Amino acid sequence: MTAQPQISTSGDIAAMMKELGRGARKAAKILSLAPTDAKNKALREAAQALRASNDEILAANAKDMAAARAKGISAALLDRLELNDARVESMAAGLDAIAELKDPVGDIIAEWDRPNGLRISRVRVPLGVIGIIYESRPNVTADAGSLCLKAGNACILRGGSESYHSSRAIWSCLQQGLSAAGLPVEAIQMIPTTDRAAVGELLTMSDYVDVIVPRGGRNLIERVQRESRIPVFSHLDGLVHIYIDEKADAEKAQDIVFNSKMRRVSICGALETLLVNRAVADTVLPGILDDLITAGCEIRGDTSVQALDARVKPATEEDWRTEYLEPILSVRIVDDLRAAIDHIEFYGSHHTDCIITEDQEAAATFMREVDSAIVLHNASTQFADGGEFGMGAEIGISTGKMHARGPVGVEQLTSFKYVVKGNGQTRP
Amino acid sequence: MTAQPQISTSGDIAAMMKELGRGARKAAKILSLAPTDAKNKALREAAQALRASNDEILAANAKDMAAARAKGISAALLDRLELNDARVESMAAGLDAIAELKDPVGDIIAEWDRPNGLRISRVRVPLGVIGIIYESRPNVTADAGSLCLKAGNACILRGGSESYHSSRAIWSCLQQGLSAAGLPVEAIQMIPTTDRAAVGELLTMSDYVDVIVPRGGRNLIERVQRESRIPVFSHLDGLVHIYIDEKADAEKAQDIVFNSKMRRVSICGALETLLVNRAVADTVLPGILDDLITAGCEIRGDTSVQALDARVKPATEEDWRTEYLEPILSVRIVDDLRAAIDHIEFYGSHHTDCIITEDQEAAATFMREVDSAIVLHNASTQFADGGEFGMGAEIGISTGKMHARGPVGVEQLTSFKYVVKGNGQTRP
Repeated sequence: MTAQPQISTSGDIAAMMKELGRGARKAAKILSLAPTDAKNKALREAAQALRASNDEILAANAKDMAAARAKGISAALLDRLELNDARVESMAAGLDAIAELKDPVGDIIAEWDRPNGLRISRVRVPLGVIGIIYESRPNVTADAGSLCLKAGNACILRGGSESYHSSRAIWSCLQQGLSAAGLPVEAIQMIPTTDRAAVGELLTMSDYVDVIVPRGGRNLIERVQRESRIPVFSHLDGLVHIYIDEKADAEKAQDIVFNSKMRRVSICGALETLLVNRAVADTVLPGILDDLITAGCEIRGDTSVQALDARVKPATEEDWRTEYLEPILSVRIVDDLRAAIDHIEFYGSHHTDCIITEDQEAAATFMREVDSAIVLHNASTQFADGGEFGMGAEIGISTGKMHARGPVGVEQLTSFKYVVKGNGQTRP
Repeated sequence: MTAQPQISTSGDIAAMMKELGRGARKAAKILSLAPTDAKNKALREAAQALRASNDEILAANAKDMAAARAKGISAALLDRLELNDARVESMAAGLDAIAELKDPVGDIIAEWDRPNGLRISRVRVPLGVIGIIYESRPNVTADAGSLCLKAGNACILRGGSESYHSSRAIWSCLQQGLSAAGLPVEAIQMIPTTDRAAVGELLTMSDYVDVIVPRGGRNLIERVQRESRIPVFSHLDGLVHIYIDEKADAEKAQDIVFNSKMRRVSICGALETLLVNRAVADTVLPGILDDLITAGCEIRGDTSVQALDARVKPATEEDWRTEYLEPILSVRIVDDLRAAIDHIEFYGSHHTDCIITEDQEAAATFMREVDSAIVLHNASTQFADGGEFGMGAEIGISTGKMHARGPVGVEQLTSFKYVVKGNGQTRP
């Protein structure tokens, strides 16, 4: 296990980060031209290394867990931090799955001929060097590193201080994969310090880093957006809404709401606010509330919702703005589709929103007007996931509109170039 | 003609810019849902208004030209600033042409079904509000404003101080078009001051502006990249190269090089550095040099090039880094394809680069390895243009890799959303 190096002054950190950046830039050039087979071999060998290093990884994780417990970290964070046999195998299986994905590099996205005989193609190429800043989940090391590699990018990883030893152990398996495939180990680098100054350097070294992907809570994302001189794929809150329309099928509504809220409460596609058309509140809502409350979900509602079930607590203005990521749901009665769209526009985070209705016209209006990365009709919001979309894996869900929006998979980690073939054409 | 308002303190400017931003955000919402016919009507009415206001526009331009001459501005800048009947008609024709383009909004980019029956579509939507900062060319007002409108975006225009009156006169025609079509005039706003503090505000009001497009020289672009808190479509230098390979057809080489350099020397697709394989320098280069020198182009070459023609001046290290935008060409002899690619990698600006060869394998290597927005084989670099690519019109050529790369046309001014249609699906 690599010990955490002692880097004491910010001058040292700036120099070290530049060194990492130079290495990443060089590796990116090689990776951008690397054959698919070499990249897949690196991924499969890394998966094998993870399986072979299971015990070392769990020992490193035990060290992180002990330090985290001593710091009095919350149960939810401890759960994100903890690794076990199943979670290590799941990371390894994830690498194998990414090896199976189609290589996006070199794909011809579009191709056309001009009247003068020029043939123009838009060809997919890697983005370059990707900086990934994440918090306590150590598995992001494997997920993000491997997605970047598959798309032909180098990456510089900065894990959270809580998961430092676990992430290093996982990273060392990725290094073994790169070596076994004859690819530069600088293709996946990890910042060897938990000093926050290193993040400041990463966010400003635009000569060496092409895009920053922050994975974590609002504080991290906001710091990155404020300080970064490099384009950022933003993954803001998933303040997810479902609107139950006047023409909703009651049974579908009950199933979809329950699944959207309770399947896993801590993921960004989990439902946070339920809006119900006044015309069907009396008939549809009592069953839904009873299901949720019985399953241990707290309901915070407006006065009309409170009148339907004595166990409903009052919702405050703050509740409409809150991504709980816990078994709590805010519920509001609205007059019509327009009021639902306006609520989502005003309070929402443009991540994922859903309408439940049998009225195709209402569904079309909702999906056209709600300005979110993902809009759903009659399906659980927990489908907001790259895997569920058929993309294989994702590095997160972007709530920004530039470059990548929604699940960020291998294709979204690429750019393109125009390749123009002529036969001596000059421009008149 | 609107007089330039007197805005004296930066507090006034901040408040004014926020007001502009709020108006643009509101207009963007309306435009994002506006029918294609309304947008096209606004474009055609604006074209008519430009034709009808020809005399007022030329009078405003005369005012700008007089002030520019008094300031002793260069002939090249004066040429960019000057309008005449033909240039006004060309702007009007440009608006009509954009009205003819296919509306990108609502386009289904991709659509697929999942095994669970979910149908997923990726649907094109506008980006939102676009801030455009440009220098002396007043026609950017019409070109940029109309492209944004067609793609369903609102925009905030900031023209150069030299073209202030000309740009306002053109802008007022765009406003007439919006009014005639019943669209909000706030969809195309123009900052009513030449105070540079307004640019500082524009670059930081991320609540109101989604992307910044700078159009101008390196100083402007660098200021924007340094100060912007908003994603930027970068349009850096076009330090364009042609490499004449060992297997080049001499006649094609001669035609393509001459056209790439001399058709128009001031555009970003104009050739700036010519690299020639040593094996064919003696046979191919003398004719090319003679053509260019005869046409008034200055040649700056390395010692081998100087040996071929006494009129060649010595090239300095600085020449390999210079985008002349004038009738000057730097010429260097290289040993092979690898040396040419290395030169382009080291000195280039990743804009547009070309290989001339009959060797398909050499062409494929060049086009794969040269990391530029546009790579050409056997065709003039002056084809680096959205119109020539069949995109109808462009707001510039992006040298960045995020979101838009190469010519930025209406499609590149859009984002997308995922529309997911289900029938009651919940996630296991």
